[in-house]
Amino acid sequence: MSEDSVGLAFVTVLGVLEQAYFSLQVIYARRKFSVSPPSTAGPPEFERVFRAQANCSEYFPIFIIVLWISGVFFSEGLSCLCGLLYLYARLQYFQGYSESAQGRLAPLYSSTRVLWLLIWFCGAGVVLSFCRVYLNLDLMHRLHTALDLA
Amino acid sequence: MSEDSVGLAFVTVLGVLEQAYFSLQVIYARRKFSVSPPSTAGPPEFERVFRAQANCSEYFPIFIIVLWISGVFFSEGLSCLCGLLYLYARLQYFQGYSESAQGRLAPLYSSTRVLWLLIWFCGAGVVLSFCRVYLNLDLMHRLHTALDLA
Amino acid sequence: MSEDSVGLAFVTVLGVLEQAYFSLQVIYARRKFSVSPPSTAGPPEFERVFRAQANCSEYFPIFIIVLWISGVFFSEGLSCLCGLLYLYARLQYFQGYSESAQGRLAPLYSSTRVLWLLIWFCGAGVVLSFCRVYLNLDLMHRLHTALDLA
Repeated sequence: MSEDSVGLAFVTVLGVLEQAYFSLQVIYARRKFSVSPPSTAGPPEFERVFRAQANCSEYFPIFIIVLWISGVFFSEGLSCLCGLLYLYARLQYFQGYSESAQGRLAPLYSSTRVLWLLIWFCGAGVVLSFCRVYLNLDLMHRLHTALDLA
Repeated sequence: MSEDSVGLAFVTVLGVLEQAYFSLQVIYARRKFSVSPPSTAGPPEFERVFRAQANCSEYFPIFIIVLWISGVFFSEGLSCLCGLLYLYARLQYFQGYSESAQGRLAPLYSSTRVLWLLIWFCGAGVVLSFCRVYLNLDLMHRLHTALDLA
Repeated sequence: MSEDSVGLAFVTVLGVLEQAYFSLQVIYARRKFSVSPPSTAGPPEFERVFRAQANCSEYFPIFIIVLWISGVFFSEGLSCLCGLLYLYARLQYFQGYSESAQGRLAPLYSSTRVLWLLIWFCGAGVVLSFCRVYLNLDLMHRLHTALDLA
């Protein structure tokens, strides 16, 4: 496994570092707006940073899950590319949301689109693997052969 | 890996789609009860939908982790079956909680029982693998041999 | 895979059991301080337990991700050791936070240090694998050879 999926691992580590950056921003915002734990209520400026981090954290496991399933069962290269796009959109989302509730929308839609693309890749990967393992039918191979003949 | 665990990947993708459905319900509830981000406080009808989604999201990574460890180290078939039951119980939990705080309890207990079953499978899988790898003792094989002799 | 990573699976199952323990503590605190779902606001004693569990849950997927990437791509033994230290620090964090907001700090810093160590291992593992797979350069092997010659 460590041979094949170094690209997926790289994107994953990058994502963990991004989450670490978001967590640090919440700690700075807590200091700046004097919101001591365990409270999570404060001025809207603080609550936006807090909710931005909470939203990114909530989606992070789902992102990692679809990144790996798409990468292992469909295509590592395409998954890594989508992964990098997703992490970039999330960075923009965090910065946009920190400034205004409106500012989170455009990058949120981008990140959601990339996530749906990864979910589609997962679905395709699962169907292709299912056909190969249980129906002994290699659809990708057939497609390549058909294209070669054409 | 992509050969063996297509069933686990299928249940995982199904779970991701369920989480996406829950997230959409929160967005609809935000619109219906006019609760704009970053606020998460509103009428109890909104807060129940919000908490139902938050609770499912919180348990989702744990579910995926025990699904895969149980599937890889113990039995893929049993894990997938438990996984499907868990996702069904979580759907009932979400719908029950959206209607009343009381309505979440019965499916919450079902989903917890299935999760504990998966944790037991994980434990059994780790013990069996440990015996096989470090003690060179294949308990499952011995059990089969003993049953054949009996 | 089930041959190699039984240690990682063991630490993971231990972590899941710890999360289950934290969740039970929140249920007990809800009963003790009469905070019925979906509300999450209550006396500071309740909110500390609630936030302690929320914080541990938020970091749990990240912990599992870096544990496995570090274990698969760098060193299983070192990762398991760090994993056990992390779980112990999180237990102290939960107990400290339950008593006072101040009490969470020292174990939080310990757990963060262990997490950063695991992230460093992940980074090293990804770089080493990248060199081996794409540059055909086995840095670990070269290091061993150099040490043997010296």
